[in-house]
Amino acid sequence: MLFNTTDIFYLTGFHFRPSERPIALIVNPNGANHLFVPLLELSHAQEYAQIEHVHSYPEYPGITHPMVYLAKLIKELNLAHTTMGLDAQGYSSAKGYRGPTISDLVTFNDIKSIKGWVETLRYIKSDKEVELIKESARWSNLAHSLLVRYSLPGKSEIEIEGQASFEATKIMFDTLGSAYKPYGNTPHAFYRGQIGPHSAFPHSQNQNARLEIGYNVVSQASCDVWGYKSELERTMFIQDISPTQETFFNHMHTAQKIAFNAIKPGIPMSDVEREVQRYYQENDLIPYTRHHTGHSMGLINHEAPFFDLGDHTILEPGMVMSVEPGLYVEGVGAFRHSDTVVVTDSGIEHITYYPRDLNSLIIGQ
Amino acid sequence: MLFNTTDIFYLTGFHFRPSERPIALIVNPNGANHLFVPLLELSHAQEYAQIEHVHSYPEYPGITHPMVYLAKLIKELNLAHTTMGLDAQGYSSAKGYRGPTISDLVTFNDIKSIKGWVETLRYIKSDKEVELIKESARWSNLAHSLLVRYSLPGKSEIEIEGQASFEATKIMFDTLGSAYKPYGNTPHAFYRGQIGPHSAFPHSQNQNARLEIGYNVVSQASCDVWGYKSELERTMFIQDISPTQETFFNHMHTAQKIAFNAIKPGIPMSDVEREVQRYYQENDLIPYTRHHTGHSMGLINHEAPFFDLGDHTILEPGMVMSVEPGLYVEGVGAFRHSDTVVVTDSGIEHITYYPRDLNSLIIGQ
Repeated sequence: MLFNTTDIFYLTGFHFRPSERPIALIVNPNGANHLFVPLLELSHAQEYAQIEHVHSYPEYPGITHPMVYLAKLIKELNLAHTTMGLDAQGYSSAKGYRGPTISDLVTFNDIKSIKGWVETLRYIKSDKEVELIKESARWSNLAHSLLVRYSLPGKSEIEIEGQASFEATKIMFDTLGSAYKPYGNTPHAFYRGQIGPHSAFPHSQNQNARLEIGYNVVSQASCDVWGYKSELERTMFIQDISPTQETFFNHMHTAQKIAFNAIKPGIPMSDVEREVQRYYQENDLIPYTRHHTGHSMGLINHEAPFFDLGDHTILEPGMVMSVEPGLYVEGVGAFRHSDTVVVTDSGIEHITYYPRDLNSLIIGQ
Repeated sequence: MLFNTTDIFYLTGFHFRPSERPIALIVNPNGANHLFVPLLELSHAQEYAQIEHVHSYPEYPGITHPMVYLAKLIKELNLAHTTMGLDAQGYSSAKGYRGPTISDLVTFNDIKSIKGWVETLRYIKSDKEVELIKESARWSNLAHSLLVRYSLPGKSEIEIEGQASFEATKIMFDTLGSAYKPYGNTPHAFYRGQIGPHSAFPHSQNQNARLEIGYNVVSQASCDVWGYKSELERTMFIQDISPTQETFFNHMHTAQKIAFNAIKPGIPMSDVEREVQRYYQENDLIPYTRHHTGHSMGLINHEAPFFDLGDHTILEPGMVMSVEPGLYVEGVGAFRHSDTVVVTDSGIEHITYYPRDLNSLIIGQ
């Protein structure tokens, strides 16, 4: 039995907006599978979920708590007094949910924790999943191209990203038609405050900054395609670049190439990080680093495993990873490209393809 | 000690994008308070968090797991072998985080669960919090007005909502200047697929549908202002309305007025729901209902408590609630207004103020 909403989408194709209302999936290897949803989602689940049976409860919190309905269902399915695998003892959500554990309400002979099982299945993408991620990358690239086109000195962040994201979204729907479902965000490209010296904060907020000549900026572009995401980020310069900026750009660019070259199936994730860290160390760059080189992605924008010194997961074909070594220089700004790659039998295939070289990234003219 | 990222923002003013990297707040009633963040967020936290001490760890998963650093910090602060209140046994995130519990690593004399404590503090908004929610409502109203202006027959959902949200955001920044921080989403208004008969799915997805004469639509508008949200939704009709649509609109409109009139401090939440349910029953509307009448909001778009038959939380001045009884009619569509109100000493004050009457909501001319 699973309570994780992403895993439930992965296994059933049922995409919904998680709320205070619990949801659960019962996978029965000896029988039919059952989805448990609020009444609010019943007709939606019946139409979209690829599953044998959909059950519903009236509402959360309701006169009778949803977990009591779930306990009743488990008993009706003769799954009490069995060995049950659980990803959690109950639903969890920041949206005001509270409730008892399933063990409070049902007696099982044994409970096995299966937390992380489906997440691990999600590590390796099928060819169809990779296709969706590639489709995401195409429309992200369009949004990014438009972002660059509108990034002129004096323009504000909001104006540039609003225009680029709106136009890319319109063009995507005009191209693919209304059969396309984002199950998330339509194409968007933005700076998220990573403009000029302030960009030294790697995960800052929209500041509605204005572009100025000589600023370095870090862009981001993405797009959901039936829930699947890619990640594209570029370090760019408004018309002009200082020698200091060029030095840090080149180090970042080299570090990214080192990571690209290091990735191959059969080695641990940490090997890739170690190669990048060695370059940092040899070039006295450690003080400018703040995070690991990359993460998996798919249905969520950051997923395990990670290119990290402490992550020894073995790389396998079909894993989709970000590659984004970053340098952060106080008073100057951020230097980070992020690209999405898929691990192949011998190395990587690039999924994002916006130019990475310095000449292509001096913009705003 | 708290791991909940929303509660940490609430208590420290430190807004950040939660990721795979754990964060924790130690509130020491006998000493200074401590924030524990990844290196990535260190300078950001030092600048923005209202707290005495900020500590950091290198990275997640890292060579040494962040929870080991946290355990070390707890021991250094002489907080091992004390009575510790915990909102959870560790950090949790869907973004690839795994880790040991804090009890695996530190011995406490006693552990008290404080899960929900800060959430309960968040129920009642201060005057300043209400001001932020009112500011959110103003810009949501602008986005909504623009959405209505662009909602002409034949236009697509994407085009209408993209244009309205982009313009409202630009105007908001032009008006408030760059001192304004959303800490979330800038003003936006959209239909999320709730267009025509398909709107009978109450929480559906963007379908990129086109507006047609005679369709009923349900809009949504919101905006984050330093993290605080309001909620505005309207049932509207494109140029024309059928007698069936008018009947259901009037029932929904009446049900919402019943809820507005029922809300006052000192009574349980469930009393409000019971009044609305009585109206549904008397008018044979139960088959068209799918959810409770409302929810609290603030830093998250849905928060406890709820206008629900099973929620007996006592209404108090300063609570901010949505009021949104909804009717869903297969083959026709959805009928739901949502308004944000704040509970006062004697009843409610309306926070959202877009017209609710039928004549104002026949649009697209």
